[in-house]
Amino acid sequence: MKPYTQLSKEKLLSLKAELEKQFEDVKGKGLKLDMSRGKPSKAQLDLSNGLMDILNSTSDLVSSDGVDCRNYGVLDGISDARKLLADMSEVPERNILIYGNSSLNVMFDTVARAMTQGIMGSTPWSKLDKVKFLCPVPGYDRHFAITEFFGIEMINIPLLETGPDMDMVEKLVSEDEAVKGIWCVPKYANPTGISYSDETVRRFAKLKPAAKDFRIFWDNAYSIHHLYDDKRDVILELLNECVKAGNPDMVFKFISTSKVSFPGSGIAALAASEANLEDAKRYMSYQTIGHDKLNQLRHVRFFKDMQGMYNHMRKHADILRPKFEKILEVLDRELGGLEIGTWTRPLGGYFISFDSMDGCAKAIVAKAKEAGLVMTGAGATYPYGKDPKDSNIRIAPSFPTVEELEVAANIFVLSVKLVSIDKLLNA
Amino acid sequence: MKPYTQLSKEKLLSLKAELEKQFEDVKGKGLKLDMSRGKPSKAQLDLSNGLMDILNSTSDLVSSDGVDCRNYGVLDGISDARKLLADMSEVPERNILIYGNSSLNVMFDTVARAMTQGIMGSTPWSKLDKVKFLCPVPGYDRHFAITEFFGIEMINIPLLETGPDMDMVEKLVSEDEAVKGIWCVPKYANPTGISYSDETVRRFAKLKPAAKDFRIFWDNAYSIHHLYDDKRDVILELLNECVKAGNPDMVFKFISTSKVSFPGSGIAALAASEANLEDAKRYMSYQTIGHDKLNQLRHVRFFKDMQGMYNHMRKHADILRPKFEKILEVLDRELGGLEIGTWTRPLGGYFISFDSMDGCAKAIVAKAKEAGLVMTGAGATYPYGKDPKDSNIRIAPSFPTVEELEVAANIFVLSVKLVSIDKLLNA
Repeated sequence: MKPYTQLSKEKLLSLKAELEKQFEDVKGKGLKLDMSRGKPSKAQLDLSNGLMDILNSTSDLVSSDGVDCRNYGVLDGISDARKLLADMSEVPERNILIYGNSSLNVMFDTVARAMTQGIMGSTPWSKLDKVKFLCPVPGYDRHFAITEFFGIEMINIPLLETGPDMDMVEKLVSEDEAVKGIWCVPKYANPTGISYSDETVRRFAKLKPAAKDFRIFWDNAYSIHHLYDDKRDVILELLNECVKAGNPDMVFKFISTSKVSFPGSGIAALAASEANLEDAKRYMSYQTIGHDKLNQLRHVRFFKDMQGMYNHMRKHADILRPKFEKILEVLDRELGGLEIGTWTRPLGGYFISFDSMDGCAKAIVAKAKEAGLVMTGAGATYPYGKDPKDSNIRIAPSFPTVEELEVAANIFVLSVKLVSIDKLLNA
Repeated sequence: MKPYTQLSKEKLLSLKAELEKQFEDVKGKGLKLDMSRGKPSKAQLDLSNGLMDILNSTSDLVSSDGVDCRNYGVLDGISDARKLLADMSEVPERNILIYGNSSLNVMFDTVARAMTQGIMGSTPWSKLDKVKFLCPVPGYDRHFAITEFFGIEMINIPLLETGPDMDMVEKLVSEDEAVKGIWCVPKYANPTGISYSDETVRRFAKLKPAAKDFRIFWDNAYSIHHLYDDKRDVILELLNECVKAGNPDMVFKFISTSKVSFPGSGIAALAASEANLEDAKRYMSYQTIGHDKLNQLRHVRFFKDMQGMYNHMRKHADILRPKFEKILEVLDRELGGLEIGTWTRPLGGYFISFDSMDGCAKAIVAKAKEAGLVMTGAGATYPYGKDPKDSNIRIAPSFPTVEELEVAANIFVLSVKLVSIDKLLNA
């Protein structure tokens, strides 16, 4: 297929007429499809139903460290849960602190804590005139929402194939004391699916921040969320690299089982240096008497260890893989060679990232909606919802069935084609 | 028995020698007893073991409003849980917002939110020079810890038989714009066990605060935690009274099932006006994608409705009642008429409050510890841990067995007698 840019105006107009007809047809079907959020499907949830059986009234509800999980106590999590989530985070058990049901909540808490208490004795951020965060883009809307909510200024950092543009990160972090953090999804990034290179991780570990309370917010949300057995990304473990580089306190790692067991009913943790954890735990000691230890026990008994979790994740992969492949198949077949968009081919995670011609993303999402397909709002992958090129669209294939995805993907490519033709005709 | 104050020095000295011998005997036993925290006993936890069976892999995990409780979504709680906790809070369903596993966490969050965001558009408390809270004393140490942690100045308010000294509350709230809140446990108060009179509740509802962001922090932790069927406290519902008085936004009510089902694995809620809940929900929408809906469903299916919860609470009462009665029996028998202490006789809740002669509480707690009995630290029931009279001691009878409590109570009264004699001898 010839690139659209090389087509004559007449050819574009006739193509447009033909595509509009197809679009009206599909619109007439009154479909309701959703590719907007990284939500597991029912089939994926079913994989964890055993969690509902693993504890019952005849179970021993005492953890291996002798704690009756039904009662008050144990602020930092039962030791079996600490071990499991430390393994998942690839850190020693002394570097893990168990929280509640959501790693997003841990991130929010961590920013909220820095605002009112400061980090490890530094000035509370709410007392400073200016606090800035670096935001690799495109990125995760809920990260940006937290920093915006607390009035933190966000600076876009281009996300390259190897991770964030580290020249820019190094410069800003070392020169500006107001830069207090950076949001990172280092593996199967949301939404591009790329994973940070070893060099990027090492450069992160070697940062020389102007602010002593600068922290890397390392959201390893997709650490074991591979799509393939034989092709997978591996990233360097950052806390260890930070220790080696003499920066042990520079990173907060966030993890949860939300997309392993049940979203909203999983367990979450913060992995960091002991000094950082002491600081976090002091806050926690005022915040709660303890998190849900029965749910911790439930997870420990169900997964047993990382091998159990890896086996479980292969079942997720078996369900997710055909969905990603279906989307890519339609994108390749329908848009390949047209030069009106590019897309990523992740080996894991929950998203495919699509880049349209500049200035088309909002129109494409609106067009798709006309035919009953809900996509993540254009701009959502950028701070303040402002994609400067208006080109990035996040595709979330997990929730619909493969059959629904085929229909959805076809609506999407039709929308891309129609909006791109308009753009070229009006150029 | 003659009051100690009327005994001669010689009599006191011979009594002291005799009691010291008894004390050495019990000390020699090397006991380990704990009456320090309001922790349910194993027998109480067993009452809720059915919660572990109520959901299993063959259960319908969809709530009555059609939500798959295993997946993301539903920020404010499934409607069945909202209904149950609204009933428990005695408010309409529109006035309830479900949180996670701990009402203490809801209170912490509420203060943290006021610090960084303000309440319903008011200036964030962290931007103010001075924020003050009124603290009825004696009260709950974890309340005071939250306000101290955020640098809020705490003002002691005497807790009378009818509730806080409302003359003082009215004066301070109406005159001082820096007064932003008051901590209340209106029913079976921690630690005195008293419940607020109707007049007190009405005076609360009719407060005319100088600060428009003044809120009553109404921790109804023991709302259904009666000890007797035929003798029980009933308090007026405050939100309704506030609505009637034209102050609908003035109250935050906190509730949880921590001492109904499992501490740490229960569900908690905030009850307040719709305007307040909108404000809280906006914060929550950045904080989390949602709380644990499976645990909400578990509670709803287990208790069904308030009748189910009331029946369940009677079983708790059957376990707790003999414990309270055992403590009171020993106190009455051993200290009655001695005029070296007074104590409360609550009809519910988790505590008995003991007041020694002035200046004796710390010494009594230390003395008891010598014999292996851990009490709540003296002073803990006051802001900053400072009991101005050094006289209040909180007794928590729930966790030990009745047999252990008999031993513990005897150590306690021995400690009270010995310290009191020393006090009188040195007067």
